[in-house]
Amino acid sequence: MIIFGIDPGLNNTGVGILDVYEKKISYNTHCVIKTNAKNSLPERLKTICSSLQNLYTEYKPEYAAVEDIFYSVNVKSAILLGQTRGAIIATLLGCNVEMFEFTALQIKKSVVGYGKADKHQVKKLVELHLGKTFDKKIPLDATDALACGICLGLSLTGKYNVL
Amino acid sequence: MIIFGIDPGLNNTGVGILDVYEKKISYNTHCVIKTNAKNSLPERLKTICSSLQNLYTEYKPEYAAVEDIFYSVNVKSAILLGQTRGAIIATLLGCNVEMFEFTALQIKKSVVGYGKADKHQVKKLVELHLGKTFDKKIPLDATDALACGICLGLSLTGKYNVL
Repeated sequence: MIIFGIDPGLNNTGVGILDVYEKKISYNTHCVIKTNAKNSLPERLKTICSSLQNLYTEYKPEYAAVEDIFYSVNVKSAILLGQTRGAIIATLLGCNVEMFEFTALQIKKSVVGYGKADKHQVKKLVELHLGKTFDKKIPLDATDALACGICLGLSLTGKYNVL
Repeated sequence: MIIFGIDPGLNNTGVGILDVYEKKISYNTHCVIKTNAKNSLPERLKTICSSLQNLYTEYKPEYAAVEDIFYSVNVKSAILLGQTRGAIIATLLGCNVEMFEFTALQIKKSVVGYGKADKHQVKKLVELHLGKTFDKKIPLDATDALACGICLGLSLTGKYNVL
């Protein structure tokens, strides 16, 4: 079974793609969907949605988790991030993928065991969970997305009770 | 040609459906999509997206306008409204509807001629534009959505230069 973990962002949306087979979570691939800040919001959302739709067609995930957002630096960026997240959820729901939401705290607690872990600690523990060392250049949006996917995987396999 | 005007809201999303034919904008119908606050966010977004998809299938609009949001009472409600708006844009883009965005100021200026008009004034001018008197009970989310649609109609027919 394939699952997606998603770290939403209007500039960069990280997508972590994982295999869950016989209670083992393993790395499949990752990508970062980038949009051009010069384009209109609908055009940027279209880029994200069509990329996600292509990923759905290629990998056919059964479940996906999107990082939940509760706060933001200001109302303007909250609206932009909210719109990105809403577009992502709508696109995957439209593909009949079952959607889950985890807060950053839930993800860090389940993956790192420590709710205040920074992005580099998250990356290290993602590597440990997946038995794989990533290139130094891997974007932290991608390791965050993989962490979100691992959190979903741990929940689905009953290894960590987040749901 | 059919166009949609949309006033996004997680609880109530107003949809105004208009006919634009030979530079005349006329009323077709309106509706308000409601979601149950007891449900999860993905479930609520799913309700909005599937209702919009049904409206698309029934009316096949060529264009749609969504009211733009720049501010909100707080970050939490900005995120919720943002997600709703993003889900709406993603759903209609997925149906290949060309999307436009207008601020409340642009809508009020084009429909009422006064950027600070209140919802009741907007309703009155919507009636005047469409040559129709609505029942007192029509939700103001619906008249706001119709106003957004009229703003798009006025732009498309070259009667008001918003775009």
